[in-house]
Order: sequence, then C-alpha cells, then structure tokens
Amino acid sequence: MSRPLGEIVDALGGTRHGSPDLLIERLAPVATAEQGDLAFVAQARYASQIETTAASVLIVPPALQAQALARGACIVSDDPYLYFARLTQWWRRQHDPAPTPFIDPSASIHPSAHLGEGVSVGPFAVIGADVHLDRGARVGAHVVLGAGARVGQDTVLHPRVTIGERCVLGERCTVHPGAVIGADGFGFAPHAGEWVKIEQLGTVRIGNDVDIGANTCIDRGALGDTVIEDGVKLDNLIQIGHNVRVGKHTAMAGCAAVAGSATIGAHCTIGGRASVLGHLTLADGVNVSALSVVTRSLLKPGHYTGFFPIDDNASWEKNAASLKQLNRMRERLKAVEQAMEHALKNNSTP
Amino acid sequence: MSRPLGEIVDALGGTRHGSPDLLIERLAPVATAEQGDLAFVAQARYASQIETTAASVLIVPPALQAQALARGACIVSDDPYLYFARLTQWWRRQHDPAPTPFIDPSASIHPSAHLGEGVSVGPFAVIGADVHLDRGARVGAHVVLGAGARVGQDTVLHPRVTIGERCVLGERCTVHPGAVIGADGFGFAPHAGEWVKIEQLGTVRIGNDVDIGANTCIDRGALGDTVIEDGVKLDNLIQIGHNVRVGKHTAMAGCAAVAGSATIGAHCTIGGRASVLGHLTLADGVNVSALSVVTRSLLKPGHYTGFFPIDDNASWEKNAASLKQLNRMRERLKAVEQAMEHALKNNSTP
Amino acid sequence: MSRPLGEIVDALGGTRHGSPDLLIERLAPVATAEQGDLAFVAQARYASQIETTAASVLIVPPALQAQALARGACIVSDDPYLYFARLTQWWRRQHDPAPTPFIDPSASIHPSAHLGEGVSVGPFAVIGADVHLDRGARVGAHVVLGAGARVGQDTVLHPRVTIGERCVLGERCTVHPGAVIGADGFGFAPHAGEWVKIEQLGTVRIGNDVDIGANTCIDRGALGDTVIEDGVKLDNLIQIGHNVRVGKHTAMAGCAAVAGSATIGAHCTIGGRASVLGHLTLADGVNVSALSVVTRSLLKPGHYTGFFPIDDNASWEKNAASLKQLNRMRERLKAVEQAMEHALKNNSTP
Repeated sequence: MSRPLGEIVDALGGTRHGSPDLLIERLAPVATAEQGDLAFVAQARYASQIETTAASVLIVPPALQAQALARGACIVSDDPYLYFARLTQWWRRQHDPAPTPFIDPSASIHPSAHLGEGVSVGPFAVIGADVHLDRGARVGAHVVLGAGARVGQDTVLHPRVTIGERCVLGERCTVHPGAVIGADGFGFAPHAGEWVKIEQLGTVRIGNDVDIGANTCIDRGALGDTVIEDGVKLDNLIQIGHNVRVGKHTAMAGCAAVAGSATIGAHCTIGGRASVLGHLTLADGVNVSALSVVTRSLLKPGHYTGFFPIDDNASWEKNAASLKQLNRMRERLKAVEQAMEHALKNNSTP
Repeated sequence: MSRPLGEIVDALGGTRHGSPDLLIERLAPVATAEQGDLAFVAQARYASQIETTAASVLIVPPALQAQALARGACIVSDDPYLYFARLTQWWRRQHDPAPTPFIDPSASIHPSAHLGEGVSVGPFAVIGADVHLDRGARVGAHVVLGAGARVGQDTVLHPRVTIGERCVLGERCTVHPGAVIGADGFGFAPHAGEWVKIEQLGTVRIGNDVDIGANTCIDRGALGDTVIEDGVKLDNLIQIGHNVRVGKHTAMAGCAAVAGSATIGAHCTIGGRASVLGHLTLADGVNVSALSVVTRSLLKPGHYTGFFPIDDNASWEKNAASLKQLNRMRERLKAVEQAMEHALKNNSTP
Repeated sequence: MSRPLGEIVDALGGTRHGSPDLLIERLAPVATAEQGDLAFVAQARYASQIETTAASVLIVPPALQAQALARGACIVSDDPYLYFARLTQWWRRQHDPAPTPFIDPSASIHPSAHLGEGVSVGPFAVIGADVHLDRGARVGAHVVLGAGARVGQDTVLHPRVTIGERCVLGERCTVHPGAVIGADGFGFAPHAGEWVKIEQLGTVRIGNDVDIGANTCIDRGALGDTVIEDGVKLDNLIQIGHNVRVGKHTAMAGCAAVAGSATIGAHCTIGGRASVLGHLTLADGVNVSALSVVTRSLLKPGHYTGFFPIDDNASWEKNAASLKQLNRMRERLKAVEQAMEHALKNNSTP
C-alpha cells in the first residue's frame, strides 16, 4: 500500500525535497506519525512539532522550509492543509478505486426508472417509478428512492439512504447512511385541542457538491421546497426543517438544527449542536459557535455565541440559583447606585 | 394538476366569492404566491398582505372579507388556517391518491403473520412471527416488524421504519423513515466499575392518530411499557426514553428528548431540542420553549423557558466569564447594600 | 410465563424467605407492583415502599430484611439492584431464548466472507467482501457490513445497523437499529470559499461488551482510528466524531455528542445531550451532567455542570435580558464598592 514520494509530487504538485523513491507507507497526524509516514505542518505556531515528529516526510509552507529541511525530506506547498486534503483524495483513489458499475440483481427497480450510463445499484435498493439516475450515480445497498426522485451525475448514496418522492439531488453529492431526505415537515393546524395535518406538498432540492451526514434529516417543504445550495456540507444527525434554505458553501457541524422556514446565507458556519429558530434570516458569512441558539435574525456577518459555561457542579449550582435573581440584582444595584449618588450630592464627604 | 375553485368549496365548505370555474394551479404561501395560486391570510395582523399578494384566490376570515373582496376572489372561512390544512389533505388526495394495496413478492413475511384486508407491504419489508397488520395498514419498503408487533387500521409505516417485538401501534398513525420504535431502553446496574445490563422486558404502546418523525427513537419499557397516547405528534430525531408516558395531543418539535420514566401531560407543547429529565411530571397544558431543559416537575400549566441568549462572541465571552462570578457578585451586592444602610442609619446625610 | 421463587434463587443466589413454590408472574417496579410480582427495594431511603407495595416478593438488602419479612416473602441480597439486573437477564433467557442460528437465504453474502460456527444472518442483510463474523455473531435483518468489517464472537447487530468498511467490533457487543458505525468523519479544508474533502482513511475499532443505541453514529477516523474501549455503553442518537477515543466502561446517555479528536477517560459518565468539544481530554472518572457543554479539558475526576436553569417564561425573559448586561453590572458593582470604600475612608461616619 506504499507509494513513492515522487509519484505523489508528480500528481499533486509542490516542491519536493528528498528522494523520489522514498516510500510513503501511511498518511498520519504529525503528533503521532512514525517512520514511513507523511504528515503536514500548516502553520508557524505548530513549528515545534517539526523537531519532534518521527514522520519521514513533512508537507510545510515556504516559511517553514528551512526548519523542515534541517531534519529531512519535505514537500513545500503554499497551503499544506489543502495539499493534504487533496493528498487524502489521491491516496483513496490509489488504494480504494471506485468499483466497476454494477446493477445488483436483487435491487427492486421500477420499469419506468431511468438509469444513466455507468450507474451502480446495490443489493436490495428500491428505485421507484420515474426515478432518474444520471450517469455515474452510485446507489448503495438498501437505498430507497421515492417516485420521481432525481439523482445527479456521480452522486454517491451510501447504504440505507432514503430519498422521498420527487426530491432532487445535484452532481457529485455524497449522502451517508441513514440520512432521510424528504420526509414530511412538521406541520399541523390546532383545532379543538387536536392537531390537523398540513400535507407537505413541496420537495427538497439539493445542489451540486453537497455532503450530507449519517442519520441527518432534511424535510420536504410544506408548499414551496426546502433548498440546499451548491457546496453545502452537513455533518451527522442534523435536522433541517421544512422550507429552510441553506446558502452556498455553508457548513454545519454534527447535531445542528434549523427550524422551518429559516434562511441561512452562503459561506456560514454553524457549530455543532447549534440551533436556528424558525423563520429567521442569517446573512452570508455568519459564524455561529457550537451549542448556540439563534433566536433572532443575524443580518451582519460576524461571530455569534451563547451557551452556559461549564463549571464544577457546586459552583454551577450556586451561580444558576443566583441567575434566577439576576434581574432583581440589577434593580438592587441601581438602587444602591442611586442612594450613593444622592448621598454624594447632599454631602461632599458622604 | 389544476382544480376549479368551485370543486374546492364543494368539498371543504366556506363561502365562495368568485367564479366556480376559476382554476387553482397551486397552493402557496401568501408572501410568494403568484397568479393561479390559492393562499390564506388567517389573522388581521397579516391583512397588509392582502393588498400585495399576487395570489388569484385568498382564504380569509369574515373580518377580512371586505378587504379581500376589494382585490378579487376569496373563500371566507371562520378558521382559514384549519381550512388550509384540510385543503392540503384534499389536494394531496386529488394528486397523489393512495396506491392500490399490493404485497410485494420480495417481502419476507412469516407464515404466522396476520395481514388484514387491503394491507400493503413494500419491497424487502420483514414481517416477523405473529405480527398483526389491521386492515388498510401500509408497510413501506425495508420496514422491519419484530415478532408479535401489531399495527392498527390504516396506519402508514414509511420506508425503513423499525418496530421492535410486541410493540403496538394504533389506527391512522404515520411513522416516517428511520424511526426506531422499541429498541432497548438504556438500563444498566453499576457493579465493580462495570455495567450490568438490565434487560428491557416491556414494550411500546402507541395510540391512534400518532405521527412519528424521521429517525426518532422511542425505547421500550424496562418492566412496564412506554406509552404514547392518542393524537401525539413527534417531529424528527426525538429521543423518548424507557417508561415515558406522553399524554394525548401533545406535540414535540424536532430533536426534543424525554429521559426515562418522565410523564408528560396531555395538550403540552415541547419546543425543538427541549429536554425533560428523567422521572419528572409535566401537567396537562405545559408549554416548554425550544432548547429549554426541564429539571423539575412542572405541575401547573404555563409557559416555561430557559436557555442562554445569543450575542456577538466578544460580548458573550465577557458575560459568560462574569456569570461564573455571579454568586460572588450577589454577596458583594449584599455587602454594599448593608454598608449603605448602615451609613444612612448612622448619619442622616451620609 | 410464571416461574417459581425457588428456581430464581437457585439460579441467582441470595437468601430466600418464602415458599420455593411461590409463583412469580412478572418483574415489576415496586411502586406499581401487583400480586404475583417480584420487585426490589435497593436502599433504606425507599424503605417506606416496603409497607405499601402489593408485590408478592421483594428483593432487599440485609438492612431491610426484618421490615420485608414482616410483610411477606423476600430475597435478601447484598446488592438488590445488581440482583435485579441479573434477574432480568435470566428472565429473558427463560421467556425469549436466543433463536436457533439460521442464515436467511435472502441475505446477500459475498463469497469471500467468513462466517464462524453458529452465526445467524437475517433477511436482506448485506455482507461484503472479506467480512469476518466470529462464532455466534447474530446479524439482524437489513444489516449492511462493508468490505473487510469484523464482528466478534456473540455480538448482536439488531436490524438495520450499518458497519462501514474495515470497522471492527469485539465480542458480546449489542448494536441497536439504525446505528451507523464508520460513516465518514466531517473533514474539509477551506479553499477559496469552498470546502475540499479530506478523505477519512481510518476506521472504527470497538472493544468487547460495548452497547450502542438506536440511530447513534460513530464516525471513522480521518487518519488514525476512532476507538471505543471495552464495556462502553452508548445510548440512542449519540454522535461520536472522528478520532475520538472513549475509555473503558464509560457510559453516555441519549443524544450526547463528542466532537472530533476528543479523548474521554475510563469510568466517566456523560449525561443526556451533554457535549464535549473537539480535541479535549477528560480524565478517568469525570461525570458530566446532562445538557452540559465541555469547553475545556477536565483533567481531574469530579462532577461538572453547566446549563441555563428553566423558569416561567416571563422570569426567564427578564433574567436573560439582564444577563446580557452582566459584565457591565460587574463593573458598576465595582464602581459603587469603590465609592463606598472611598466615602468610608474619608469619613468615619459617611
């Protein structure tokens, strides 16, 4: 499974310092790399790791070249992290090439479905009426595609993904196991103490180059559609409510949630388990910290946060109890300030 | 796919103002409705939208009739939102009628299972021993029903739902993809630094007209059962622990969680990602805001909330740091109040 | 389904007081137990339940023996809760014995897969190339095992579990429906406003006696592996990021989440919906309360907490608004303290 250093640099560029025949056994984090490993150091503040790592080769930026050369072989690249990302892709292609297209005979494929050239369909997949799979799409085992769903070119649906009726995915998307795209949004009208279902008549439309994590749910729209634009990256166990729109290249970490009809701009980052309440708008370039709850529209780009700090339990108990008195404390503080001011006014030496 | 206005009013009632032949192309939100669309305005505070919408027909309450008539066709109804909900159901039935019952030959059905009249079973569904499907039940592709499970009349299990052994669902329920009903509750006894499994011997019992969202989990009881009463609506990615009881017509939004042995009353609303700790009791009619953590029983109906407000990150950092001093601040405030009181007592002009 | 008391004590030990022929119909919680039921009272503080329960037999510690005897039959055990846990296991074995091993003919099993003695494979399971199932492993319906995955002796995969390529599970593990082990971790390098995928080349390695709840996700490592050590118990809907390590016998309640590269010690408890941010270290024996967010490494064992207390909504609104002024309040408090100090210094009777 090893590859010579020269082959890597031929494929990915950068400046090689060291023998082209040097064999790379593994890619590894710099902190735990061993002999035979290739690792990267992206920033000057990690420069001390250059001296201590056992990696055989390092990817470094120009500013760290001298330091890296002093210890051995390296690849110099303007953006070592990006170089490393591309290297992982190349490495995977070498070791785990895409399988030959194959339609598993156990799959249930409706006669009206259209399968483009080079499409793969795994065991027990269910492909409904009028489904359209563009060329090179890969449908894993146990995937269920509802009637009229469309999957773009080279999109990969890992095992056990569910795509609802008429939902559309673009090109080069990746969807991980257990994701549910196009279940009903949560819509009910209250009536006499009960709930009357509002049928969810819209769909989900997903752009190109979108990644969707395991067990993530994206609900179909009530009337219009739920829309995920190009290049969006969603981690695992995320909930996207009906009629949400997520702008291009926005990324959300695990367990994030966006309630119905919220609009998230492009190039936003939503931290793990952050929540956005319904009907809000987030501008382009908003960064929401993990665990924070967005309760109002954020119309300016920036970094927003809100969660309770952790503490030892005894301290938390005292502070949480005081918190319930906070507004009252504010009034008491004002009173004592006024008393002080009054005293000072009446008496220059109170 | 269009329908004449007259046909809608014949089916659903209300007072029609406008030609019965006027064709409705789509149902749409009032804000984005176009010509050919039918939209609703439920409340006087949205009355300004009557003037600006391009919808061809509006559903309005009597109080807005004059204003709506001034711009064109309308349906007058005492409760436009309810009217609209019923219209979505009618619209779906027109455009997407329930499929003809069909038992897919690929399904794995135990010979001892009972299938009522008009039952549907999708591809690769697995129906265990002694399962009972009442008439009209619809079992989607890849659904797994454990031994002895029972599904009531006209209940719909969407693809890839798992129902554990002996669990029971009532009539007219809807369960969305990926939901897991009747996995083991989380029960372990500590012993010598390890965990000893407490087998979960109970089941899950679900009433009539219950909706369960995608990838939601409802655990089986440890000894008694976990119970979800009639008309409960659960959104996606919700966790219901073992031996929980949820009362009639309570609704929970996405990512809510209820820990083991909690009892939730009827007609409650639990907001998105709200949490209820174990063994607590919530009275009927309790409303818990999104993201709030219920840490004590709430024995009176009312609206309860608790989460950290979001802010720009710099402000949050300062306030969160101060929060850890809050109890100390309370003591300092008390001290300065006492000093002030003492000073004022000793000196009429302090 | 009943069992005589004597048979239970013969199997599980403890001291029996009462006829060996007394029939036990059910195991039940002491609070709701009825005649024919066996219940336990583990601690003196629940002793009052001994008088009020209708259970036919109680499991009690030596300290409660006299009180229990005064009302009827009992089993005396040093650790009634542990006794009860083992009793639930025995009870299940009596009533629900493990099925005879069976390879369902509908399963899709790659010819290169190795199936040990006594392995079961359910309907429509998909077993990839070079998968290794040790003796007695039970693979449920619709389970998907990626190429090269390994499952240890007597491990049970419930229906609809997904195990990614090359992931490894130890012996006697239990994995509940919908769990996804070995989906890609969330890794992307930013480049020119877009995200470049970092292929996740590692795997997941899971020890012996690990339980994994429904719809829980454990991501594969980016370079190294994600590691779950022996005896770990994970509840439902948990997210474990790439390259996380969880130490032996640590338990996490429902909806907990651990971000990438965090290291959790042994014998920790992580409460429901608690979160651990990335790259942090938790020492052995750390207990994190439900809902708390671990934002820094916790290097000492102890009990840590942090979440916003719930309140009636009106109080919350006032306190949450004041919270945004908290740092300013702290400054104001300091100012009034200094003014007071100054006044007292200048004037003995201010």
